[in-house]
Amino acid sequence: MKTLITGGTVVNASGRSRADVLIDGEQIVALLEPGSTLFGVDLAASVDKVVDATGKYVVPGGIDAHTHMEMPFGGTFAADTFTTGTTAAAWGGTTTIVDFVVQYPDQNVLDQYALWHDKAAGNCAVDYGFHQILSDVQDSSLAAMDELIDEGVTSFKLFMAYKGVFLSDDGQILRAMQKAADNGAMMMMHAENGAVIDVLVQQALAAGNTSPFFHGTTRPWQAEAEATSRAIMLADLTGAPLYVVHVSAKQAVEQIALARDKGQNVFGETCPQYLYLSLEEQLGAVSEQWGDFEGAKWVCSTPLRSKHEGHQHHMWQALRTNDLQLVSTDHCPFCMADQKELGRGDFSKIPNGIGSVEHRMDLMYQGVVTGQISLERWVEITSVTPARMFGMYGRKGVLAPGADADVVVYDPAGHTSIGLGKTHHSNLDYSPWEGFEIDGHVDTVISRGQVLVADDEFVGRVGHGKYVKRDLSQYLV
Amino acid sequence: MKTLITGGTVVNASGRSRADVLIDGEQIVALLEPGSTLFGVDLAASVDKVVDATGKYVVPGGIDAHTHMEMPFGGTFAADTFTTGTTAAAWGGTTTIVDFVVQYPDQNVLDQYALWHDKAAGNCAVDYGFHQILSDVQDSSLAAMDELIDEGVTSFKLFMAYKGVFLSDDGQILRAMQKAADNGAMMMMHAENGAVIDVLVQQALAAGNTSPFFHGTTRPWQAEAEATSRAIMLADLTGAPLYVVHVSAKQAVEQIALARDKGQNVFGETCPQYLYLSLEEQLGAVSEQWGDFEGAKWVCSTPLRSKHEGHQHHMWQALRTNDLQLVSTDHCPFCMADQKELGRGDFSKIPNGIGSVEHRMDLMYQGVVTGQISLERWVEITSVTPARMFGMYGRKGVLAPGADADVVVYDPAGHTSIGLGKTHHSNLDYSPWEGFEIDGHVDTVISRGQVLVADDEFVGRVGHGKYVKRDLSQYLV
Amino acid sequence: MKTLITGGTVVNASGRSRADVLIDGEQIVALLEPGSTLFGVDLAASVDKVVDATGKYVVPGGIDAHTHMEMPFGGTFAADTFTTGTTAAAWGGTTTIVDFVVQYPDQNVLDQYALWHDKAAGNCAVDYGFHQILSDVQDSSLAAMDELIDEGVTSFKLFMAYKGVFLSDDGQILRAMQKAADNGAMMMMHAENGAVIDVLVQQALAAGNTSPFFHGTTRPWQAEAEATSRAIMLADLTGAPLYVVHVSAKQAVEQIALARDKGQNVFGETCPQYLYLSLEEQLGAVSEQWGDFEGAKWVCSTPLRSKHEGHQHHMWQALRTNDLQLVSTDHCPFCMADQKELGRGDFSKIPNGIGSVEHRMDLMYQGVVTGQISLERWVEITSVTPARMFGMYGRKGVLAPGADADVVVYDPAGHTSIGLGKTHHSNLDYSPWEGFEIDGHVDTVISRGQVLVADDEFVGRVGHGKYVKRDLSQYLV
Amino acid sequence: MKTLITGGTVVNASGRSRADVLIDGEQIVALLEPGSTLFGVDLAASVDKVVDATGKYVVPGGIDAHTHMEMPFGGTFAADTFTTGTTAAAWGGTTTIVDFVVQYPDQNVLDQYALWHDKAAGNCAVDYGFHQILSDVQDSSLAAMDELIDEGVTSFKLFMAYKGVFLSDDGQILRAMQKAADNGAMMMMHAENGAVIDVLVQQALAAGNTSPFFHGTTRPWQAEAEATSRAIMLADLTGAPLYVVHVSAKQAVEQIALARDKGQNVFGETCPQYLYLSLEEQLGAVSEQWGDFEGAKWVCSTPLRSKHEGHQHHMWQALRTNDLQLVSTDHCPFCMADQKELGRGDFSKIPNGIGSVEHRMDLMYQGVVTGQISLERWVEITSVTPARMFGMYGRKGVLAPGADADVVVYDPAGHTSIGLGKTHHSNLDYSPWEGFEIDGHVDTVISRGQVLVADDEFVGRVGHGKYVKRDLSQYLV
Repeated sequence: MKTLITGGTVVNASGRSRADVLIDGEQIVALLEPGSTLFGVDLAASVDKVVDATGKYVVPGGIDAHTHMEMPFGGTFAADTFTTGTTAAAWGGTTTIVDFVVQYPDQNVLDQYALWHDKAAGNCAVDYGFHQILSDVQDSSLAAMDELIDEGVTSFKLFMAYKGVFLSDDGQILRAMQKAADNGAMMMMHAENGAVIDVLVQQALAAGNTSPFFHGTTRPWQAEAEATSRAIMLADLTGAPLYVVHVSAKQAVEQIALARDKGQNVFGETCPQYLYLSLEEQLGAVSEQWGDFEGAKWVCSTPLRSKHEGHQHHMWQALRTNDLQLVSTDHCPFCMADQKELGRGDFSKIPNGIGSVEHRMDLMYQGVVTGQISLERWVEITSVTPARMFGMYGRKGVLAPGADADVVVYDPAGHTSIGLGKTHHSNLDYSPWEGFEIDGHVDTVISRGQVLVADDEFVGRVGHGKYVKRDLSQYLV
Repeated sequence: MKTLITGGTVVNASGRSRADVLIDGEQIVALLEPGSTLFGVDLAASVDKVVDATGKYVVPGGIDAHTHMEMPFGGTFAADTFTTGTTAAAWGGTTTIVDFVVQYPDQNVLDQYALWHDKAAGNCAVDYGFHQILSDVQDSSLAAMDELIDEGVTSFKLFMAYKGVFLSDDGQILRAMQKAADNGAMMMMHAENGAVIDVLVQQALAAGNTSPFFHGTTRPWQAEAEATSRAIMLADLTGAPLYVVHVSAKQAVEQIALARDKGQNVFGETCPQYLYLSLEEQLGAVSEQWGDFEGAKWVCSTPLRSKHEGHQHHMWQALRTNDLQLVSTDHCPFCMADQKELGRGDFSKIPNGIGSVEHRMDLMYQGVVTGQISLERWVEITSVTPARMFGMYGRKGVLAPGADADVVVYDPAGHTSIGLGKTHHSNLDYSPWEGFEIDGHVDTVISRGQVLVADDEFVGRVGHGKYVKRDLSQYLV
Repeated sequence: MKTLITGGTVVNASGRSRADVLIDGEQIVALLEPGSTLFGVDLAASVDKVVDATGKYVVPGGIDAHTHMEMPFGGTFAADTFTTGTTAAAWGGTTTIVDFVVQYPDQNVLDQYALWHDKAAGNCAVDYGFHQILSDVQDSSLAAMDELIDEGVTSFKLFMAYKGVFLSDDGQILRAMQKAADNGAMMMMHAENGAVIDVLVQQALAAGNTSPFFHGTTRPWQAEAEATSRAIMLADLTGAPLYVVHVSAKQAVEQIALARDKGQNVFGETCPQYLYLSLEEQLGAVSEQWGDFEGAKWVCSTPLRSKHEGHQHHMWQALRTNDLQLVSTDHCPFCMADQKELGRGDFSKIPNGIGSVEHRMDLMYQGVVTGQISLERWVEITSVTPARMFGMYGRKGVLAPGADADVVVYDPAGHTSIGLGKTHHSNLDYSPWEGFEIDGHVDTVISRGQVLVADDEFVGRVGHGKYVKRDLSQYLV
Repeated sequence: MKTLITGGTVVNASGRSRADVLIDGEQIVALLEPGSTLFGVDLAASVDKVVDATGKYVVPGGIDAHTHMEMPFGGTFAADTFTTGTTAAAWGGTTTIVDFVVQYPDQNVLDQYALWHDKAAGNCAVDYGFHQILSDVQDSSLAAMDELIDEGVTSFKLFMAYKGVFLSDDGQILRAMQKAADNGAMMMMHAENGAVIDVLVQQALAAGNTSPFFHGTTRPWQAEAEATSRAIMLADLTGAPLYVVHVSAKQAVEQIALARDKGQNVFGETCPQYLYLSLEEQLGAVSEQWGDFEGAKWVCSTPLRSKHEGHQHHMWQALRTNDLQLVSTDHCPFCMADQKELGRGDFSKIPNGIGSVEHRMDLMYQGVVTGQISLERWVEITSVTPARMFGMYGRKGVLAPGADADVVVYDPAGHTSIGLGKTHHSNLDYSPWEGFEIDGHVDTVISRGQVLVADDEFVGRVGHGKYVKRDLSQYLV
């Protein structure tokens, strides 16, 4: 099966050019000058399918490097299964996700890895890779790291918060980082000082401050900046590359920028919520339906930050300066009904997480419209860098011969309204992005040569998605 | 005429992939999966010429964004004509240069621009663009900026040193930057505090310190760091983008890094001499032939820095961290005989400049060999970023359909010995790089579809090179 | 004549203690435990005069290290003579001023120094020293520096603005700093980039922006921060100690802080106007009498800064962190009538300067009341450090045996209303501090044993004030 | 009993002056102009004792704010009792110590406080105060803080290392800091990341690296810089003042400097060992007697740092820039015999600590001799600031009427040789300062009017020393 995407503007991280993209089977086989007859062959006539991209951007399929499908947490599961979550991803132009295998303290790392394969296999609409969470770093976990790298899991996430659930102490982090410095793995870090947060939460609850708003105030930016600084120092001590997930505080960015200026391999992702949403407007929201529990919709960690402290502005700036390298979603949706509701009267019991996997490409494209980032930077932070950061570049993250034919045709003249009953294919019973309007639209989505979305219809297939065995990071200096 | 480059590894700024490059006439028309038959057409058999790149890197032709061919200075001219200089460039895998139109205070900007076209037209082996030097910023100069932008000269260089020759005072700089903020031009800056240097030079000479070594000591890093800081502040005040040429002091880099962390459009180039050579070893050199005047060979400004202060190390680091964005040569060769000799007994009369246009790609590739930079970064700093920075990307700096077929096949298994009688095609009567050995080799050089260098022979043609009308910078955030 | 100050709290830079101060003639001869009979002598009964300081602070007399009495400028003279200016100083608890000898380009440094002695001798109510302004740095000026140091003039002020009037170029600054590094003099700097300001002023006037408000906007903080950075770099190059006068921009403070963290001898003063007044509220003021020319009252350089940029807050902070070391007034009053009025319709013709010599101690004490600084820090920045910085400590700036009996008894229970018809003894026909209310009061002022002010009467004598021959700075690290 | 110290130069933090000091009973009652007859009284003839300080410095008695007399640690006790330790202090011109009350996890805070009083009462040659160590922060500990403040214990030390012995987790630190922000106490911090160190120690031992040298390498500067940064962030979050003990890494100083530039109440002490001794020269020492266990003599924490990394240079600089505020000893001596020897074959079992209480004034004076600090700064960092920092100023740390008559007459023409059989009055069976020669000498030491040391004899009395009930810090901004 051959497909020709014709007439569009191909955009990569460095620039853009007019080119046609020829797909044969699952791969791109050629980039061609538009209209080129090429030794007399009428390409458009010779292929099985022509996608007209005239007036549109042709970009590598989005890669969301941070999702939690069906994540078990506090007795419940994140609302999106691999099926619903990857279908929503496809709708939004994301053709690869990297999901987190969860290991809790009493679980075996490799068993959990196998379990996640079971969950995902045959159930995904787009391709998927895995990061591995290590919640306690034992000798066996360290040994498992080597095995998992062979399996294509080359990045490992530790937590500096959530004592008894995920938290690793600094000695455990050190050992894992020593291992990573040795085997080349990327250390991912949830950088918040959990001990500090636990005290503040307890004090807030004791003081009767129980609504979702206090989820934000009990996780102050100092807790994030401190942990980020600590993780950087440990990485410096060991030589391990470090990737800080869901950066939301400008002071954390400053720590990352400082380390990067010195040439250290320290990286940071942010998420759409930290670019657009705030403590006051979302966590402090009140609605007729939910009262002051409305804010539960946006309870995620790191939390939304105060709009009066300049964090949003700084996150956009850091995306421009490359002090933050990419944008993921931390997609971890919990419904208001039955799930978020568990925390009514005690914000600390609200399952943490919001869902954005469907909207990341659109939300970030809106940054192009408003002038926050360039078109090229949009492609870089949503696809090129995620691919490079996590060892998929060449197959993913690029439109080039030999690459997987993961392609998004994006229409700058289109429009997208986000919200329930509008654009929303997640299982979530609300949208954290309700009411957001995007001056652009995902036109066509292709994964390994297969059209998943066209003409605002999902024409893909659950089960199409395959596991991506990843290499070591291709982004280190 | 069709050419197929086959079997190589195509490298761009983000990554590398196996791909064949198909050239038709002056342009690349397709990138193809190697060995792809493409609807039954046997490509290799169908083209006029096949370049076998097996085991080699296929990269966009080098762009040297800072050369001074035939530059008039102190009653003499830089030793390389456009003919010899661009021929040397071709030998070294550089297929585009951007040369500086010189305007001295009593000269008309547009007349000088016309004169430089006269010098270059029909005499170049590779393509060439122009930056414009403004040595005094009058109303007429400001008006000329707009005209020149229409002509494809979108970058303007000012000097904070060389009083009476090139120097602009801060008020003149301010006005030019205001103009640039308005019309989108890139302001280039020779950032050294000339008033300070003039006093130090006069004092050194008065003290009998007349040898080339004192060229270095009378241009201390403080003079560079200060002027860099000043230029950045003026750029901040006006909103103009700023490009600092030939950065050599780590303290200047720190100023640039600081501004960049804040999101300011401030850029810096460095040159091979600041990565490899030093005050003590070169400016302080003594030879049988030249005595302590030997150092004159390396008299350039900014000067070579002390090897004891960590500048070289910091320059490499800054290339990795992208605090410096690209590497140019500041190619401005003066022969020892008749030219450099003018400064015997008075280092201040030594014509400033050394020549490296032929060796830049090799010297920087050696940084890949020694692990200072990645292969991708090599391509980025020698071609991709120069193209983007100076408004040529799409035509230059990229291997993509529609781009000019400027291609270098680089052989990592080859070897290059630099020096007179070895690799040296400049008019210069000495080599500043004598004795440097490179673990790689420029294999084939193609400019707009035309092979210039193959099998260690120059098979190009003087006159092949065309003027490149440049757009505004494509690198701004 | 013996005087005993009894019952008060003696405050110095490190702390406070209950002590009586015994004065004999012009000097302090003893600090004594209150009520001490001391070998049977009833001190209170034995002295000629007892000053009851019960419930009050006893502090070393204020030292205003930056005044311009009778300064010739633009065809007029600053409104306060040495007589009126030093009388106003005495009223406000300032017992020593350091005034600036002005040398314009066509004048001889030593002649001017002699002239200033003529102006001051016999006309001062308090003691006075001199700084020397060097407006062009010739060989003769450099030679004069040595002579002046012998005369007790150990600090020299250069200007980076006011071309043709005061400005020194960077080469001249360098030479003066080399000299200072050699002879130990303190280099004082008016740090504003004059070339930039001149262009902005010309452009503002050309655009019809002629009111006093534009005095502020045409001297942006970048012009100050840049010049400060430049001065620091030149000081670093030469090893000279540097004292930046009238710092008003937070970005300038940052440059100073950075240099100080590295151990460089860089110092900064600020003035009450930069702690309390702003571009919008004062320079932009409109009154019935003066219309939008009202702002002329506060035209001084560096200018008042925007209240929206955080400068005031940062100045107070820098006083606390010792990144700024002291507070002077830059007292340089020009009347609205006949003087400021010269600039109606052209702000650039408004004589620069405001007058605060009488109010400095009160205005800074109000910072103690509001919690911005400690009581000890108040004494330090108004007296101890000025004395140390400018080589008077031991005689001035301290309450200790052997020191000049310059003492202020300050009443924290008193109150001071500033303004015409209230507290105002300057010749100025308006008060820049009109309406300011101070929660404290200068109770008694003693200069070399002589009471100058008591019971809200001036009981001193014009002519009492003597020249203070200063040593080199005692503040260098 | 009246004493007159006559003819000397009184030095305080701001400057110096010639003055006589009159003592009556335990207090200074007057500072007098030398030779002043004062209403006809011949002072020298009227007093009981005259101390001739001609040609000598008269300074406030030294205050060592960090000692551990008789500290229980690992089954043994620090070798100096309060008797021997304070006698050694007196010999060295230190007239006040602040010792640490130790509370281990299973002990009651107030019981321990009472126990320390029992240890010290009647056994001290000089005055003593107490800091309280909190090794686990329970509700009862927090309550005890208030009580202890009433008792004059206004500073509380926590540890970020020594798990199971002293370590507090970040939540405990947070709670204690919240309390301190409320009651005004100073939080002192042993800032090293214990979790990291524990892993490194275990790994070193497992690798057979058991000699004292590895004590240094397993406590890398990153562990100190990280913990310092963390403590600062927690202090920022709570508003508590923070005092970092025994700072030895330049990167830790940088964290402190940064916080101070922002106006945060963050302070740091360093110790003589970090100014003079190094990892290589001391911890790596080999002797005939002890072999490579020789280094055990200098096993203390934080450890001696590598001489190749610039720490010593930076510590001196920070003392000049006031980024470090004072110098204490962390006097915690353990004999080689029986005590240090416990760690032969396992450096982790070597009791941590060295003894310097006798030598601090001399060792720091040597910094005056070598030009590292000024004479005034010597007085400030050894006496004035310790007094202010820990709430004793007025009584201690100053020569002023009403202050305790704690006075040291220091002879700049004297000489001191340190070492066993030379100047050494500690119980320690070796001297960590063996062979150090000082170009100055402690001439006379007076504590509350009582001469303790004169003519190189100890003429004081064990039991003379009294408890100093301290106020809250007088150093906060």
